[in-house]
Amino acid sequence: MRTESRVTRKQVGIRDVAAAAGVSVTTVSHVLNDTPHTRTSEETRTRVKEAAANLGYKPNRLARGLRTQASGMVGLITEEIAITPYAGRIIQGAQEAAAERGLTLAIINSALNPAPDIEPQLLRALMDRQADGFIYATVYHDEVVVPEEMHASPAVLIGARDRDGDIPSVMPDERAGAASVVDMLLAAGHKRIAYAATSVDVPATRGRIAGYRERMIAAGRFEDRLVVEAEAEASGGYRAAMALLNHGAAPPQRPTALFCYNDRMAMGAYRAAAELGLSIPRDLSIVGFDDQAPIPYSLYPELTTVALPHYEMGAWAVETLSALVEGKGEYRLLGAHSTLLACPIVHRGSVAPPAAT
Amino acid sequence: MRTESRVTRKQVGIRDVAAAAGVSVTTVSHVLNDTPHTRTSEETRTRVKEAAANLGYKPNRLARGLRTQASGMVGLITEEIAITPYAGRIIQGAQEAAAERGLTLAIINSALNPAPDIEPQLLRALMDRQADGFIYATVYHDEVVVPEEMHASPAVLIGARDRDGDIPSVMPDERAGAASVVDMLLAAGHKRIAYAATSVDVPATRGRIAGYRERMIAAGRFEDRLVVEAEAEASGGYRAAMALLNHGAAPPQRPTALFCYNDRMAMGAYRAAAELGLSIPRDLSIVGFDDQAPIPYSLYPELTTVALPHYEMGAWAVETLSALVEGKGEYRLLGAHSTLLACPIVHRGSVAPPAAT
Repeated sequence: MRTESRVTRKQVGIRDVAAAAGVSVTTVSHVLNDTPHTRTSEETRTRVKEAAANLGYKPNRLARGLRTQASGMVGLITEEIAITPYAGRIIQGAQEAAAERGLTLAIINSALNPAPDIEPQLLRALMDRQADGFIYATVYHDEVVVPEEMHASPAVLIGARDRDGDIPSVMPDERAGAASVVDMLLAAGHKRIAYAATSVDVPATRGRIAGYRERMIAAGRFEDRLVVEAEAEASGGYRAAMALLNHGAAPPQRPTALFCYNDRMAMGAYRAAAELGLSIPRDLSIVGFDDQAPIPYSLYPELTTVALPHYEMGAWAVETLSALVEGKGEYRLLGAHSTLLACPIVHRGSVAPPAAT
Repeated sequence: MRTESRVTRKQVGIRDVAAAAGVSVTTVSHVLNDTPHTRTSEETRTRVKEAAANLGYKPNRLARGLRTQASGMVGLITEEIAITPYAGRIIQGAQEAAAERGLTLAIINSALNPAPDIEPQLLRALMDRQADGFIYATVYHDEVVVPEEMHASPAVLIGARDRDGDIPSVMPDERAGAASVVDMLLAAGHKRIAYAATSVDVPATRGRIAGYRERMIAAGRFEDRLVVEAEAEASGGYRAAMALLNHGAAPPQRPTALFCYNDRMAMGAYRAAAELGLSIPRDLSIVGFDDQAPIPYSLYPELTTVALPHYEMGAWAVETLSALVEGKGEYRLLGAHSTLLACPIVHRGSVAPPAAT
């Protein structure tokens, strides 16, 4: 009896429709959600719609939005929480937004795979508990291919776009954050603003250098030799700073400001400045990125840097997911684009106007 | 019908017994679990046992251990995850141990209250979902008064003892970790080993200085002036190191090794050493504590420090809780004492024998 009751309660799923129509789950999702910019033939669309009608299937993300009793549980899947120094802030933002809404957050730590896939059994475990929806948080990819299981429930992404353009996402505006640092340094009077870059293949790398380049070019100040690439750690920051500053030259040849890809590189740049006898910020202004505790307030002088909106992204994700679950969200409209949250400058003690020369 | 079915399923709880007997939930727990060293009169014990028998109550932690169908969900309550740089490792350890057992981890972030209490509504939200048990993780208290709700389910504590001595707990062996640092420095030939201390009221403070003192006294090397207290940040480490090292004196007056309460203080000590022209480790060995990323591998030379077993404590908690839920754990025996996990030294580049003088 017990088993039977479970079976009768089970809804027809998107997988059943996909199997009946002989197409992928993603295709079913595209057809039933009228996702724009997808190349599905009219014949396939008809076959999917017929299969859905025959099985009595309605997309869960809509069906769930209309049902009166939600489970009150939201699943947060984070990628390699331990090696991401910011996961705690994402979790805190999500947690506090969930608590305000009487929701419980179930957190699952996904392994970082070579491909950005989520282990399906983890998702199934959450779905078996009837989570109302899912948040998937990553920092290593521009786009993720969302597992089929996530197409069957309301879902939002933190830190990456859905390759299918189907799921709302939120990301830090790395480019605008980096551009604002250059604007600040230019406004302070700096002309030679160097950038300690890195080449790790993550969205932050591309966004930050793009913001730096675009503003330096607009100001007529960009030069290739102002950019030195090294690894994204203190040791790399030391090497990049030595290469940029150690020409035996005083300004105007030597950069008077050094913008570092992250706070760890800035930490190495402090060591280089000390070895070269350059006083921060009198001889050299330094700016980091990430606001990674405890670095900025552990350096002397304290490091001016750019904060990432991790708390805000966690809260945004729960708020958006909550609206979707309650049927308030225009899912298809939201899915069409990503939300960018601002990365504000945190002013501390490492920036000053350049010394008169 | 639905409501009725819920009601009939609901078990008689420890609160019902407490109300019927006119005593606290804690007293009921002590009586029914035969907790040693509690001062409950024979008359009260009889009244509690009669109330439990009349209501058909059996302690849940035993009853649950015997039932065949567990919910497969474990609640992890962490205290102020965002301001604890180590919560990620606790969560990862718990998460991986849970995944191995097919358990889902529901994480709740509790606010840090002046009193170490957990908000009861958070616990009730989890209990309404029939979590099999709870893990409560803290780093700020020696002991916690466990909320009444936690007495009704299997529970384990990370980082603090249960004041009632009723719930198993796991903690880092801070004292032994600090003692092993002194042993290592003595074995390397150091005689004047200073300690940059702090007075924050947390268990780590007391454990670490106790380990330092005990080994220094045993070696006949302890002197009050080898200990300087400052705040537990880089700025405090700088001030403590300046006070300890800046006597214009060479060894043997000046310490040849400096053990810092944490890695942040060690970071400040590096700055002090650089200003004083002392080369690490040639002129001064420095050891930290915490292995707090990214400090140890961002300093030059990389910092030798002591790792905290956060991952291991998270895994221990799930393993122990899982055994309790399955009825394998000897709850009362486990509850009688705390498990201490080792804090291993992580050898990097900041320790060497003292220079010959």
